[in-house]
Amino acid sequence: MSSHPTFSPHDLAPALEGLHPELRILGPEALAGRHPGEDPGNLKAGVMAQPASTEAAAALISWCRANHVAVVPQGGLSGLVGGGTSLAGQVLLSSNRLNRILAIHVDEETVEVEAGVTLEALQAALAPHGLTTGIDLGSRGSATIGGMVSTNAGGILAFRNGVMRHQILGLEAVLPSGEIFSDMTRVVKVSAGPDLKQLLIGGEGAFGFVTRVVMKLESIRQHRAVALLGVADAARALLVAARLRRHPALMLEAAEMMWPRYVRDHAALKGFDLSWLEGGSALLLVEVSGESAEAAVTHLEEALADVWEEADLKGGLVAQSSDQARRFWDLREDSGFYFAAFPDAPSFDVSMPPSLLDRYVADLTERLSAIGDGYEAYVYGHIADGNLHIALAAPGPLLADLKAKVEDGVYAGILASGGSFSAEHGVGLDKRSAYLSHVDPVKQVLAREIKNLLDPERIFNPGKVPF
Amino acid sequence: MSSHPTFSPHDLAPALEGLHPELRILGPEALAGRHPGEDPGNLKAGVMAQPASTEAAAALISWCRANHVAVVPQGGLSGLVGGGTSLAGQVLLSSNRLNRILAIHVDEETVEVEAGVTLEALQAALAPHGLTTGIDLGSRGSATIGGMVSTNAGGILAFRNGVMRHQILGLEAVLPSGEIFSDMTRVVKVSAGPDLKQLLIGGEGAFGFVTRVVMKLESIRQHRAVALLGVADAARALLVAARLRRHPALMLEAAEMMWPRYVRDHAALKGFDLSWLEGGSALLLVEVSGESAEAAVTHLEEALADVWEEADLKGGLVAQSSDQARRFWDLREDSGFYFAAFPDAPSFDVSMPPSLLDRYVADLTERLSAIGDGYEAYVYGHIADGNLHIALAAPGPLLADLKAKVEDGVYAGILASGGSFSAEHGVGLDKRSAYLSHVDPVKQVLAREIKNLLDPERIFNPGKVPF
Repeated sequence: MSSHPTFSPHDLAPALEGLHPELRILGPEALAGRHPGEDPGNLKAGVMAQPASTEAAAALISWCRANHVAVVPQGGLSGLVGGGTSLAGQVLLSSNRLNRILAIHVDEETVEVEAGVTLEALQAALAPHGLTTGIDLGSRGSATIGGMVSTNAGGILAFRNGVMRHQILGLEAVLPSGEIFSDMTRVVKVSAGPDLKQLLIGGEGAFGFVTRVVMKLESIRQHRAVALLGVADAARALLVAARLRRHPALMLEAAEMMWPRYVRDHAALKGFDLSWLEGGSALLLVEVSGESAEAAVTHLEEALADVWEEADLKGGLVAQSSDQARRFWDLREDSGFYFAAFPDAPSFDVSMPPSLLDRYVADLTERLSAIGDGYEAYVYGHIADGNLHIALAAPGPLLADLKAKVEDGVYAGILASGGSFSAEHGVGLDKRSAYLSHVDPVKQVLAREIKNLLDPERIFNPGKVPF
Repeated sequence: MSSHPTFSPHDLAPALEGLHPELRILGPEALAGRHPGEDPGNLKAGVMAQPASTEAAAALISWCRANHVAVVPQGGLSGLVGGGTSLAGQVLLSSNRLNRILAIHVDEETVEVEAGVTLEALQAALAPHGLTTGIDLGSRGSATIGGMVSTNAGGILAFRNGVMRHQILGLEAVLPSGEIFSDMTRVVKVSAGPDLKQLLIGGEGAFGFVTRVVMKLESIRQHRAVALLGVADAARALLVAARLRRHPALMLEAAEMMWPRYVRDHAALKGFDLSWLEGGSALLLVEVSGESAEAAVTHLEEALADVWEEADLKGGLVAQSSDQARRFWDLREDSGFYFAAFPDAPSFDVSMPPSLLDRYVADLTERLSAIGDGYEAYVYGHIADGNLHIALAAPGPLLADLKAKVEDGVYAGILASGGSFSAEHGVGLDKRSAYLSHVDPVKQVLAREIKNLLDPERIFNPGKVPF
């Protein structure tokens, strides 16, 4: 490649002005002091382009391609693996002005939506129609639909509804060539040649910039009951979840597990009374819906009584108010509490076939303690689909050889067991070594070749997956 | 490309013998007299390779690549668009000895299975565990899992469970290079880089030969009730389906609609008594499951009585025996009855957003009658996901200009409405002109480039999609 002029952020912003009437450019001054979101490197480019239309995004991308300027697609800046980090000389391409809900098809339970709408805003717009999204996750207030597409987000409901890939019917994107790729089908049955929008789903910005999608929806089930249960292990937690899934009058809405160290430290920090819990137990949070709030509570209490002995429950509380339910959920969703004690604690997001979880956690514990005294992990996650979040109870970042040992400890056996080293956060920058070690080499080569095909100059999210 | 030696079927079979101990070769003599399945061209190659392992398939493919011999992947020969047709000098690569069910994970509700297992055989193996597949279709006795992956099959349950793409967790395939692509995850949450197995799902044999998959399963719901209802239009049928979907004690298992001409001619052929049906009505077949057979029937009868007036039903029967239920289903599933009167009748498989179905069928009727007197269509299909099967009440094949007029009549407006010109049958050879006319040109180019990347010599299923 010949050498290209490089732009400083101060040169770049004026060069982008006027490319398209629906394109707003923010330069270093406008971005100064903005919160960078989950990754301190997110705004380092110092220049952000905010298209308000697909055509404006295409104009920006075409210019960047012609001028060899790298583009970093961004959504709600809630990514956890550095997939949106940037460098000076690059342009941030933000979806935040692509924020229109284009059409709600109430009878069909589908919605056409621009990529920059947050999950929470979409849910709020759907609620008056009795509808909601089939995917839900803790960062709903900031995560955008486009970002969720790009990381193939999973969240709380994946055990029943699958992940974003299973909810997206149609998709429009601007490719690195500047061309608009349009496949806005709103039907579930399509067998009309290769389904190339799948490259954009979970593509982490490597193959283009998602501008709009058609998503499946489902009816809101508003009558809920929540319980917090002491469990000995994942097998017992899964038994409870399975029983609730099959209950004729209930629908299981969440099954979230927290292992003992997470429970102990988080409850202590929050002043959460665990005197009812048999010491050293893990916690299982279950949420169900029913025909009425009373029915949900009654059926849940009965179902838990029925399964109590077989599941060897170590105590339990059914929330008596929505406030109490919220406090149960906070134990699970305020999961970053450990960063106060352990800044930059190395964290992981794996999935394992659920029946192998207990053995996996036992082996993990052993492998970490073999690294050195006191090496322990906080473990919690979406038990019914086998997705565990894991954080080392130690400050980060780790030195290279220690980092490698910890990663080996976390990832050992996952590929052979049919799990994944990244369940729902993506690869980004942070999981580069895991990708290189735990993805089939044939697939890695092919991913790189497809990247070269779509983005021969690698202007889209350079340095990120595929490597 | 330099000229390559071409093989006759009689030369080719001996040349393939001995490539791998787990590879069986059938030559022209062995194939003579075999039923070609749904397409008379399926066995024209005259040579079939039957690997019993992934490695044997890889050996065959590597040889074919080295010798510039085309490979036509085949499953149960039940494809309806000529996706498996072949020519002399090509090799049929059949999955029918890849017929092992490798592991049933009962608690996780997943199965690892080789590609050549038929849907019916898989369902039979799962039944003792109380499990079944989340996809079901009429050709279950011959359709293989690998073929269903390759066409992204949909069937009866897609309105709730989605299509094959939504059921496949893991996949292994041999690429045109002869390399083995392995991604046998058995978890639903994976965000570990580009998900390239999606190219093989719905890939119609263009990108490789699927050898094994991991599939999601669901619990069997064995207590069923079936009704046949007279309906004025799709809107009313969808109202009934929506009501049954929301019934707290029932689960909707099927909602299949047959338009009046289909009803009239098929009932007459079968001697099916329709004296209870208001003349000229369409028929809606619904199947539900409940806690017991009695509960299913009782709740279904009550629910139909409740919705009767609002849905303006034109008569109805609830099956009183499994025999009667089977006769109801035969009206829908023996859908090829019209080929007796109209050999090779041109047939189509489209999907439309359900709320647009009535207008679509009205417009279709008008467009066909504008072609000439008596041009009418049989219309029937999976109403809840908007998938219509359409057959012209005229013998085929049509001359080119008439064919173009009919295709225009069938496909007009589908793309702009967010539907698909091929819902679940694929593109194959037969839907080539529809693909060229109704797929985004940007996507067509990209599909061709990916094809060139994976299969530069185009040895895999040449002449089929992508064109």
